[in-house]
Amino acid sequence: MPPAPLGPLATPTAAVLVIGNEVLSGRTADANLATIAQKLAGVGIRVRESRVVPDIAAEIIAAVNALRQRFDYLFTTGGIGPTHDDITSAAVAAAFGLTLEEHPEARRRLAAHYPPEKLNPARLRMAQIPPGARLIDNPISAAPGFQLGNVFVLAGVPNIMAAMLDGVLPRLAGGPAVMARTISCELAEGTLAEGLGAVQGRYPEVDIGSYPYFRASGFGVSLVLRATDPDRLSAAAAEVCALVLALGGLPRVTDGQ
Amino acid sequence: MPPAPLGPLATPTAAVLVIGNEVLSGRTADANLATIAQKLAGVGIRVRESRVVPDIAAEIIAAVNALRQRFDYLFTTGGIGPTHDDITSAAVAAAFGLTLEEHPEARRRLAAHYPPEKLNPARLRMAQIPPGARLIDNPISAAPGFQLGNVFVLAGVPNIMAAMLDGVLPRLAGGPAVMARTISCELAEGTLAEGLGAVQGRYPEVDIGSYPYFRASGFGVSLVLRATDPDRLSAAAAEVCALVLALGGLPRVTDGQ
Repeated sequence: MPPAPLGPLATPTAAVLVIGNEVLSGRTADANLATIAQKLAGVGIRVRESRVVPDIAAEIIAAVNALRQRFDYLFTTGGIGPTHDDITSAAVAAAFGLTLEEHPEARRRLAAHYPPEKLNPARLRMAQIPPGARLIDNPISAAPGFQLGNVFVLAGVPNIMAAMLDGVLPRLAGGPAVMARTISCELAEGTLAEGLGAVQGRYPEVDIGSYPYFRASGFGVSLVLRATDPDRLSAAAAEVCALVLALGGLPRVTDGQ
Repeated sequence: MPPAPLGPLATPTAAVLVIGNEVLSGRTADANLATIAQKLAGVGIRVRESRVVPDIAAEIIAAVNALRQRFDYLFTTGGIGPTHDDITSAAVAAAFGLTLEEHPEARRRLAAHYPPEKLNPARLRMAQIPPGARLIDNPISAAPGFQLGNVFVLAGVPNIMAAMLDGVLPRLAGGPAVMARTISCELAEGTLAEGLGAVQGRYPEVDIGSYPYFRASGFGVSLVLRATDPDRLSAAAAEVCALVLALGGLPRVTDGQ
């Protein structure tokens, strides 16, 4: 099933596959999805689905094949280290019907990073890459990721993942940038809902989300408008401000999401 | 495809479906998966997959049907408020071939919570529940969630979600508790990898994960062992401690993950 249409927000699409038992067990709260979504939005690509799967080859393979066929890009995080539970590279290769081979340039990078006595068989596993893949630089800990077709295999450690992703952004074909306006106020969602739905109905090309917040300073709601057409975005934001004011609220507008 | 076998960790399984554009856009980092995983682990249920989908009915329906058939339980978060982008209840109903109806008890709870002039049509949408569903109490903001078959529909706001989940834990049939030991040390993953893989090979019933950390105080690795058999868990932990010591490391063991 192809993704449902999103009107003018139909920028190129991406999925994020988070691989790791530690996320499913609740040990680690994934932070990579948000980072990837923000960085891709900056080049006009929209994350449309994310999955978390365990360190089980069959489940990784199934998810890779489901997502790489449905979206323009797939980014995986996690499972490319030296230990027995790092099976992402082999699983991604298997999803393409391939098996891993030692990549001379990947091995060279590991050999430049580790003293010879530390370049043991476990670390050399990190030079095993699917044939035909293009390396993704790892400026922090040397062991590269790789791109195979539209699949980008990244590390799971957040700062390494982010550095790898920065390096591949120039490879990606993005669409028009998505701009955002956030209108916050101290009204309740249920008070705004009817009028907000009417604004959404008049601006189908603007994606309007309503997110209540509960802070020590009081409760309220952030209304997030996103669109690629700046004129329609401004017009919809003006209508939302008018709605908030008519209901006795005090709108505060910011240019982020 | 049923989940791959997990040996003695084959406790009842669950999936978590996070619904909301704000998570896919990177506006909000999901925190509910970790909470759900930890609470379910406490009653002997293991989260085996998680997905994040946008506020699009067809995508919610497809994910609900894929996950509810594959796992013992499915928990959804988000999209049950009063605004136009809250479409989870209708989508879950549609996944079961049902349409929403006003639930008298749900309406009664909303009427008890809101003054009459505030119980507008938008808020009354939160009393629309699939026929045959069982309500899930919301002790914080009244609007209930619901259980339909093996699907539990919860709020997205973290503290409301957690309170709802606490209320349904007694309904769930769990398995033996999964116990954990975490062994941390200042060795590199690549130094430990070979020996750790050998321990994993000798203890297939113990799930061993390796998670490097990078802190101001230095780098190192946390080795997390999880199992339902306390004797095998202890024996595997002892072997990992011996491995760390043999490599010159100083193991620190905790009883969490």
